[in-house]
Amino acid sequence: MKIAILGMGSVGRGLLEMIDGKELGLTVTGIADSKSALLDPDGIHIEEVLIAKRERGYCGDKSLSAADVVEQGDYDVLVEVTPTDADSGEPATGFIKTAIGRGKHVVTSNKGPIALHFSTLQSLARKHGVVIRYEATVGGAIPVLHTLEHGLAGNRVLAVYGILNGTSNFILTRMAAEGLTYEQALLEAREMGYAEADPTYDVKGIDAAIKLVILSNTIWKRNVKLSDVTITGIDMLTNDALRLAEEQHCTIRLIAEAIPEKGILRVAPRILPRTHPLVVENTLNAITIDTDMAGEITLIGKGAGSRETASACIGDLLFIKDSHARGN
Amino acid sequence: MKIAILGMGSVGRGLLEMIDGKELGLTVTGIADSKSALLDPDGIHIEEVLIAKRERGYCGDKSLSAADVVEQGDYDVLVEVTPTDADSGEPATGFIKTAIGRGKHVVTSNKGPIALHFSTLQSLARKHGVVIRYEATVGGAIPVLHTLEHGLAGNRVLAVYGILNGTSNFILTRMAAEGLTYEQALLEAREMGYAEADPTYDVKGIDAAIKLVILSNTIWKRNVKLSDVTITGIDMLTNDALRLAEEQHCTIRLIAEAIPEKGILRVAPRILPRTHPLVVENTLNAITIDTDMAGEITLIGKGAGSRETASACIGDLLFIKDSHARGN
Repeated sequence: MKIAILGMGSVGRGLLEMIDGKELGLTVTGIADSKSALLDPDGIHIEEVLIAKRERGYCGDKSLSAADVVEQGDYDVLVEVTPTDADSGEPATGFIKTAIGRGKHVVTSNKGPIALHFSTLQSLARKHGVVIRYEATVGGAIPVLHTLEHGLAGNRVLAVYGILNGTSNFILTRMAAEGLTYEQALLEAREMGYAEADPTYDVKGIDAAIKLVILSNTIWKRNVKLSDVTITGIDMLTNDALRLAEEQHCTIRLIAEAIPEKGILRVAPRILPRTHPLVVENTLNAITIDTDMAGEITLIGKGAGSRETASACIGDLLFIKDSHARGN
Repeated sequence: MKIAILGMGSVGRGLLEMIDGKELGLTVTGIADSKSALLDPDGIHIEEVLIAKRERGYCGDKSLSAADVVEQGDYDVLVEVTPTDADSGEPATGFIKTAIGRGKHVVTSNKGPIALHFSTLQSLARKHGVVIRYEATVGGAIPVLHTLEHGLAGNRVLAVYGILNGTSNFILTRMAAEGLTYEQALLEAREMGYAEADPTYDVKGIDAAIKLVILSNTIWKRNVKLSDVTITGIDMLTNDALRLAEEQHCTIRLIAEAIPEKGILRVAPRILPRTHPLVVENTLNAITIDTDMAGEITLIGKGAGSRETASACIGDLLFIKDSHARGN
């Protein structure tokens, strides 16, 4: 199966390393970064591209662009792994639409297009007889969308609860374990490389809310938006509150939850018993899916990281390869 | 898709209730219990059968048997949910072979055939172009086999660790929480209906070991047997040992683990930090899959129960319906 990859950040590079190192039956015929692109219908030499990127900072031919790859490339699946723009979802959304319009499947790790334009993209994909898969957008390496689609097929999902942001979970873990203040724990998260210079998206619950929107629209075929989510971050939380919770054998976690029957769609710090399956430590993510037959199923794993995100994209690619590509 | 069901214990009845209550596109054309059977190529009236079973103790026509259903039934998938015979795997294995020989897919919740005759059944299925699925045999409602097959596709699995027996986990939870002795906790498990009159399979680690064999053979395409597993149960564990672990913010769990690179295939009580994702309470099961790309993914859920087991069978049935039945 032929694939074209947009984006050579850590996820794109992780993906290329995996495709190069494993025999997955995937041939890369197009690659683009922000400055250049490469096209080769017979398959690009991945190692050379990774070396070029590392040594000179761009991957290919500066006279070619991502648009050229999307519009002219010879591929079955577009893999869109550029950075998220959570306000417009562009330019990723435009590229995805073009690929779908050409009858190509799409795999993306980009939360913007999926959170902002889910129903439009799904309708377009259906119209053109292709699929758009986005496992990497929620919970990093955790195969939550595969689980919902197949593992729990036939179940009615009643609710979903989760720790969907590793940065804020790290901060809460450190506040509880060491009695640190929020500011001290945030500083530590920055030093460890878990928090950005501007941690707003993480600590104010916006990143978790975006993922909750994606989960809700996927599970219940709804069309909720970020503005529909009631959001409270962890930045006002005191270590006194955490200490009190710990004294009761509980702790505080930033929980994203959707319970349509109760009209609940929110991200907020919640007190949970220490023994609750959702209570994970450090940067781990955890998602509980409450169903009518299987009961509560909880999935735990790494919510971020280049290899982990690439793993989710590979899962999507192999699923398309197994189930759809034969028909093309 | 037409299915025939062998077994009308709690799982079989749970399955029938679900198929009757949900629009899954499944038509039941054959049902057998230990005393009788029913065949109707146009679809059996499920509610009537459930009432008959409840009122008179058997489901259908006493002149028909399970063998008649398997050999003469008009079905696409045989659903084999009879009780496990862990020594011979019969009569289930014979029925499964017959169905495969007729070109029928198989879904089973029965650990015996899969633990004892995995490679034979897989070869036979391949030869006849059908699939045999057995999600319900490991971890109850937890879709661990789906996760391995699809969610983590492309990953190399390095190791698997799990709490695969709810009865022994309940006993350990109660010993730790209340300082009960093993005997006291076992008595409580019996009173709650979690332990059989003869708890040997559960507390001596045999049930967990059988599931570990199934997982190992599935993941690594090996042909290990129950006798290859080093097994230590929880029946010799003292509450002193548990108390000491708890004093160190740890606890003891019966862990099944397979690490082929280290030659480890064992079930034994292990000390784990209280915050470890595998440390679940009461009758929950938990499985950690360690991979080269996604890192450690942990799945937690109910390991037993009629609805939960039926949920796993439904997941398998819908997967076959989506991906294979069209070709028949």
